[in-house]
Amino acid sequence: MAFATNRGDDQAAPIFGVKIPPGYRDWKLISVAHEEGNLNDLRAQLGNDIAIKAYREGTLPFPDGAIIAAIHWQYVPSEENNKVFGRAQSFVAGPPKNVQFMVKDSKKYAATGGWGFADFTNGKPGDEATHQKCFPCHEPAKAHDFVYTHYAP
Amino acid sequence: MAFATNRGDDQAAPIFGVKIPPGYRDWKLISVAHEEGNLNDLRAQLGNDIAIKAYREGTLPFPDGAIIAAIHWQYVPSEENNKVFGRAQSFVAGPPKNVQFMVKDSKKYAATGGWGFADFTNGKPGDEATHQKCFPCHEPAKAHDFVYTHYAP
Repeated sequence: MAFATNRGDDQAAPIFGVKIPPGYRDWKLISVAHEEGNLNDLRAQLGNDIAIKAYREGTLPFPDGAIIAAIHWQYVPSEENNKVFGRAQSFVAGPPKNVQFMVKDSKKYAATGGWGFADFTNGKPGDEATHQKCFPCHEPAKAHDFVYTHYAP
Repeated sequence: MAFATNRGDDQAAPIFGVKIPPGYRDWKLISVAHEEGNLNDLRAQLGNDIAIKAYREGTLPFPDGAIIAAIHWQYVPSEENNKVFGRAQSFVAGPPKNVQFMVKDSKKYAATGGWGFADFTNGKPGDEATHQKCFPCHEPAKAHDFVYTHYAP
Protein backbone atom coordinates (compact mmCIF):
# COMPACT_ATOMS: atom_id res chain seq x y z
CA MET A 1 0.00 0.00 0.00
CA ALA A 2 1.52 3.27 -1.11
CA PHE A 3 0.92 6.56 0.64
CA ALA A 4 0.61 9.49 -1.70
CA THR A 5 2.14 12.72 -0.48
CA ASN A 6 -0.18 14.71 -2.70
CA ARG A 7 -3.74 13.66 -3.30
CA GLY A 8 -3.71 15.33 -6.71
CA ASP A 9 -6.85 17.17 -5.77
CA ASP A 10 -7.29 20.43 -7.62
CA GLN A 11 -10.12 21.90 -5.59
CA ALA A 12 -9.35 25.28 -4.08
CA ALA A 13 -10.60 26.42 -0.69
CA PRO A 14 -13.27 29.16 -0.78
CA ILE A 15 -12.41 32.82 -0.08
CA PHE A 16 -8.64 32.31 -0.23
CA GLY A 17 -8.31 30.05 -3.29
CA VAL A 18 -5.66 27.91 -1.59
CA LYS A 19 -5.11 24.40 -2.98
CA ILE A 20 -3.39 21.49 -1.23
CA PRO A 21 0.35 22.17 -1.71
CA PRO A 22 2.04 19.26 -3.54
CA GLY A 23 4.30 17.19 -1.30
CA TYR A 24 3.34 18.89 1.96
CA ARG A 25 3.46 15.58 3.85
CA ASP A 26 7.22 15.54 3.19
CA TRP A 27 7.80 18.92 4.88
CA LYS A 28 9.84 19.31 8.05
CA LEU A 29 8.24 19.22 11.47
CA ILE A 30 7.51 22.42 13.37
CA SER A 31 5.79 20.96 16.44
CA VAL A 32 3.07 18.67 17.75
CA ALA A 33 0.02 19.18 19.95
CA HIS A 34 -3.01 17.56 21.51
CA GLU A 35 -6.42 19.19 21.67
CA GLU A 36 -8.97 17.79 24.08
CA GLY A 37 -12.66 18.67 24.05
CA ASN A 38 -14.68 18.54 20.85
CA LEU A 39 -11.54 18.46 18.74
CA ASN A 40 -10.01 15.45 20.51
CA ASP A 41 -7.09 15.11 18.16
CA LEU A 42 -3.34 14.75 17.84
CA ARG A 43 -1.78 17.27 15.51
CA ALA A 44 1.48 17.99 13.78
CA GLN A 45 2.48 21.21 12.12
CA LEU A 46 4.82 20.98 9.14
CA GLY A 47 6.47 23.84 7.27
CA ASN A 48 7.83 24.34 3.79
CA ASP A 49 11.49 25.39 3.59
CA ILE A 50 10.66 29.12 3.78
CA ALA A 51 8.54 28.62 6.90
CA ILE A 52 11.08 26.36 8.62
CA LYS A 53 13.91 28.80 7.95
CA ALA A 54 11.85 31.66 9.39
CA TYR A 55 10.99 29.61 12.48
CA ARG A 56 14.58 28.58 13.12
CA GLU A 57 15.93 32.09 12.61
CA GLY A 58 13.09 33.72 14.55
CA THR A 59 12.00 35.81 11.54
CA LEU A 60 8.73 37.68 12.05
CA PRO A 61 6.61 38.39 10.15
CA PHE A 62 6.96 35.22 8.09
CA PRO A 63 8.18 36.00 4.56
CA ASP A 64 5.98 35.63 1.52
CA GLY A 65 5.97 32.05 0.29
CA ALA A 66 5.94 30.54 3.78
CA ILE A 67 3.35 27.77 4.13
CA ILE A 68 2.39 25.99 7.33
CA ALA A 69 0.45 22.71 7.24
CA ALA A 70 -1.47 21.45 10.27
CA ILE A 71 -2.42 17.79 10.12
CA HIS A 72 -5.06 16.61 12.56
CA TRP A 73 -5.60 12.93 13.38
CA GLN A 74 -8.10 11.23 15.62
CA TYR A 75 -6.79 10.73 19.16
CA VAL A 76 -6.89 6.99 19.74
CA PRO A 77 -5.59 4.77 22.53
CA SER A 78 -2.94 2.24 21.56
CA GLU A 79 -3.75 -1.14 23.08
CA GLU A 80 -0.46 -2.47 21.73
CA ASN A 81 1.56 0.20 23.54
CA ASN A 82 -0.51 0.01 26.73
CA LYS A 83 0.25 -3.70 27.05
CA VAL A 84 3.96 -2.93 27.09
CA PHE A 85 3.67 -0.06 29.55
CA GLY A 86 1.35 -2.11 31.76
CA ARG A 87 -1.24 0.65 32.01
CA ALA A 88 -3.58 2.68 29.80
CA GLN A 89 -1.42 5.69 29.02
CA SER A 90 -0.61 5.63 25.33
CA PHE A 91 -2.43 7.64 22.66
CA VAL A 92 -1.45 7.70 19.02
CA ALA A 93 -2.49 9.28 15.75
CA GLY A 94 -5.52 7.48 14.33
CA PRO A 95 -7.31 8.11 11.04
CA PRO A 96 -6.79 11.59 9.55
CA LYS A 97 -9.45 14.18 10.38
CA ASN A 98 -8.47 17.21 8.34
CA VAL A 99 -5.50 19.21 7.18
CA GLN A 100 -5.22 22.99 7.27
CA PHE A 101 -2.84 25.38 5.55
CA MET A 102 -1.69 28.96 6.12
CA VAL A 103 -0.11 30.53 3.04
CA LYS A 104 1.79 33.80 3.39
CA ASP A 105 1.26 36.37 0.64
CA SER A 106 1.32 39.82 2.17
CA LYS A 107 -0.26 41.52 -0.87
CA LYS A 108 -2.84 38.94 -1.94
CA TYR A 109 -4.05 38.34 1.62
CA ALA A 110 -3.47 41.84 3.02
CA ALA A 111 -6.98 41.89 4.53
CA THR A 112 -6.28 38.81 6.67
CA GLY A 113 -2.87 39.57 8.10
CA GLY A 114 -1.07 38.45 4.96
CA TRP A 115 -2.26 34.86 5.32
CA GLY A 116 -4.54 32.75 3.17
CA PHE A 117 -6.25 29.92 5.05
CA ALA A 118 -7.54 26.55 3.87
CA ASP A 119 -9.14 23.50 5.44
CA PHE A 120 -9.47 20.13 3.70
CA THR A 121 -11.15 16.90 4.76
CA ASN A 122 -10.43 13.86 2.61
CA GLY A 123 -8.95 16.20 0.01
CA LYS A 124 -12.11 18.33 -0.21
CA PRO A 125 -12.13 21.94 0.98
CA GLY A 126 -14.51 23.02 3.73
CA ASP A 127 -17.31 25.47 2.99
CA GLU A 128 -17.21 29.25 3.01
CA ALA A 129 -18.57 29.52 6.56
CA THR A 130 -15.70 27.37 7.80
CA HIS A 131 -13.14 29.58 6.10
CA GLN A 132 -14.70 32.79 7.40
CA LYS A 133 -13.75 31.64 10.91
CA CYS A 134 -10.03 31.19 10.22
CA PHE A 135 -8.71 34.71 10.48
CA PRO A 136 -10.84 35.89 13.45
CA CYS A 137 -9.59 32.87 15.37
CA HIS A 138 -5.96 33.63 14.49
CA GLU A 139 -6.18 37.38 15.20
CA PRO A 140 -5.27 37.08 18.90
CA ALA A 141 -1.89 35.67 17.81
CA LYS A 142 -1.03 38.93 16.00
CA ALA A 143 2.21 39.33 18.01
CA HIS A 144 3.46 36.09 16.47
CA ASP A 145 2.25 37.00 12.97
CA PHE A 146 -1.11 35.26 13.58
CA VAL A 147 0.56 31.87 14.02
CA TYR A 148 -0.09 29.91 17.23
CA THR A 149 2.43 27.12 16.82
CA HIS A 150 5.90 27.66 18.23
CA TYR A 151 8.89 25.66 17.02
CA ALA A 152 9.74 22.57 19.08
CA PRO A 153 13.51 22.00 19.02
CA MET B 1 18.16 32.42 17.82
CA ALA B 2 19.22 29.63 15.52
CA PHE B 3 18.20 26.03 16.00
CA ALA B 4 20.89 23.55 15.10
CA THR B 5 19.68 20.38 13.44
CA ASN B 6 22.71 18.52 14.69
CA ARG B 7 24.22 19.18 18.07
CA GLY B 8 27.65 18.14 16.82
CA ASP B 9 27.94 15.82 19.75
CA ASP B 10 30.21 12.89 19.13
CA GLN B 11 29.34 10.74 22.13
CA ALA B 12 28.09 7.28 21.26
CA ALA B 13 25.40 5.43 23.19
CA PRO B 14 26.63 2.43 25.22
CA ILE B 15 26.15 -1.16 24.01
CA PHE B 16 25.11 -0.15 20.47
CA GLY B 17 27.61 2.62 19.70
CA VAL B 18 24.95 4.76 18.02
CA LYS B 19 25.66 8.49 17.70
CA ILE B 20 23.13 11.24 17.05
CA PRO B 21 22.55 11.13 13.27
CA PRO B 22 23.40 14.48 11.65
CA GLY B 23 20.35 16.41 10.47
CA TYR B 24 17.76 14.07 12.01
CA ARG B 25 15.52 17.02 12.98
CA ASP B 26 15.01 17.63 9.25
CA TRP B 27 13.68 14.13 8.61
CA LYS B 28 10.12 13.45 7.49
CA LEU B 29 7.35 12.77 9.95
CA ILE B 30 6.17 9.23 10.65
CA SER B 31 3.59 9.91 13.36
CA VAL B 32 2.88 11.60 16.68
CA ALA B 33 1.79 10.34 20.10
CA HIS B 34 1.02 11.30 23.66
CA GLU B 35 2.09 9.25 26.66
CA GLU B 36 0.40 9.92 29.97
CA GLY B 37 1.66 8.60 33.32
CA ASN B 38 5.26 9.01 34.36
CA LEU B 39 6.32 9.83 30.82
CA ASN B 40 3.79 12.67 30.37
CA ASP B 41 5.10 13.76 27.00
CA LEU B 42 4.25 14.63 23.44
CA ARG B 43 6.28 12.74 20.89
CA ALA B 44 7.04 12.73 17.20
CA GLN B 45 8.71 9.98 15.25
CA LEU B 46 10.78 11.00 12.25
CA GLY B 47 12.42 8.74 9.69
CA ASN B 48 15.37 9.02 7.35
CA ASP B 49 14.60 8.46 3.67
CA ILE B 50 15.13 4.69 3.88
CA ALA B 51 12.75 4.39 6.84
CA ILE B 52 10.08 6.64 5.29
CA LYS B 53 10.17 4.71 2.01
CA ALA B 54 9.78 1.42 3.88
CA TYR B 55 6.86 2.80 5.89
CA ARG B 56 5.04 4.12 2.84
CA GLU B 57 5.57 0.96 0.86
CA GLY B 58 4.79 -1.31 3.80
CA THR B 59 8.21 -2.98 3.63
CA LEU B 60 8.95 -5.32 6.56
CA PRO B 61 11.48 -5.94 7.92
CA PHE B 62 12.92 -2.46 7.55
CA PRO B 63 15.99 -2.48 5.26
CA ASP B 64 19.49 -1.87 6.57
CA GLY B 65 20.20 1.82 6.84
CA ALA B 66 16.72 2.71 8.10
CA ILE B 67 16.82 5.04 11.10
CA ILE B 68 13.86 6.12 13.20
CA ALA B 69 14.12 9.09 15.55
CA ALA B 70 11.68 9.57 18.43
CA ILE B 71 11.66 13.07 19.90
CA HIS B 72 9.98 13.48 23.29
CA TRP B 73 8.91 16.88 24.62
CA GLN B 74 7.33 17.84 27.91
CA TYR B 75 3.53 17.90 27.73
CA VAL B 76 2.56 21.45 28.62
CA PRO B 77 -0.77 23.31 28.56
CA SER B 78 -0.96 26.28 26.19
CA GLU B 79 -2.58 29.23 27.95
CA GLU B 80 -2.45 31.17 24.70
CA ASN B 81 -4.43 28.52 22.83
CA ASN B 82 -6.85 27.91 25.70
CA LYS B 83 -7.85 31.57 25.71
CA VAL B 84 -8.90 31.27 22.08
CA PHE B 85 -10.77 28.02 22.56
CA GLY B 86 -12.42 29.37 25.72
CA ARG B 87 -11.52 26.30 27.75
CA ALA B 88 -8.49 24.39 29.02
CA GLN B 89 -8.03 21.85 26.25
CA SER B 90 -4.77 22.61 24.48
CA PHE B 91 -1.46 20.88 25.11
CA VAL B 92 1.68 21.55 23.16
CA ALA B 93 5.29 20.42 22.96
CA GLY B 94 7.31 22.06 25.74
CA PRO B 95 11.04 21.76 26.41
CA PRO B 96 12.72 18.67 24.92
CA LYS B 97 13.06 15.68 27.24
CA ASN B 98 15.08 13.19 25.23
CA VAL B 99 15.52 11.79 21.76
CA GLN B 100 15.82 8.12 20.88
CA PHE B 101 17.04 6.35 17.76
CA MET B 102 16.60 2.93 16.22
CA VAL B 103 19.24 2.11 13.61
CA LYS B 104 18.74 -0.92 11.36
CA ASP B 105 21.81 -3.03 10.67
CA SER B 106 20.78 -6.65 10.46
CA LYS B 107 24.34 -7.98 10.83
CA LYS B 108 25.82 -5.61 13.40
CA TYR B 109 22.74 -5.78 15.63
CA ALA B 110 21.66 -9.37 14.89
CA ALA B 111 21.29 -10.12 18.62
CA THR B 112 18.68 -7.37 19.06
CA GLY B 113 16.38 -7.92 16.10
CA GLY B 114 18.69 -6.09 13.71
CA TRP B 115 18.26 -2.80 15.55
CA GLY B 116 20.71 -0.64 17.46
CA PHE B 117 19.10 1.59 20.08
CA ALA B 118 20.18 4.91 21.53
CA ASP B 119 18.80 7.43 23.99
CA PHE B 120 20.12 10.99 24.41
CA THR B 121 19.23 13.76 26.82
CA ASN B 122 20.65 17.18 26.05
CA GLY B 123 22.96 15.51 23.54
CA LYS B 124 24.38 13.08 26.13
CA PRO B 125 23.73 9.35 25.86
CA GLY B 126 21.96 7.55 28.68
CA ASP B 127 23.80 4.92 30.71
CA GLU B 128 24.22 1.23 29.99
CA ALA B 129 21.32 0.20 32.23
CA THR B 130 19.01 2.45 30.21
CA HIS B 131 20.13 0.90 26.95
CA GLN B 132 19.75 -2.65 28.24
CA LYS B 133 16.01 -2.01 28.51
CA CYS B 134 15.50 -0.98 24.88
CA PHE B 135 15.28 -4.31 23.12
CA PRO B 136 13.27 -6.23 25.75
CA CYS B 137 10.68 -3.44 25.61
CA HIS B 138 10.53 -3.60 21.80
CA GLU B 139 10.39 -7.39 21.58
CA PRO B 140 6.58 -7.62 21.78
CA ALA B 141 6.42 -5.65 18.52
CA LYS B 142 8.26 -8.40 16.66
CA ALA B 143 5.46 -8.73 14.10
CA HIS B 144 6.15 -5.15 13.01
CA ASP B 145 9.93 -5.60 13.04
CA PHE B 146 10.15 -4.43 16.68
CA VAL B 147 8.81 -0.98 15.81
CA TYR B 148 5.72 0.32 17.63
CA THR B 149 5.00 3.42 15.61
CA HIS B 150 2.70 3.09 12.63
CA TYR B 151 2.71 5.61 9.79
CA ALA B 152 0.11 8.37 10.08
CA PRO B 153 -1.01 9.44 6.60
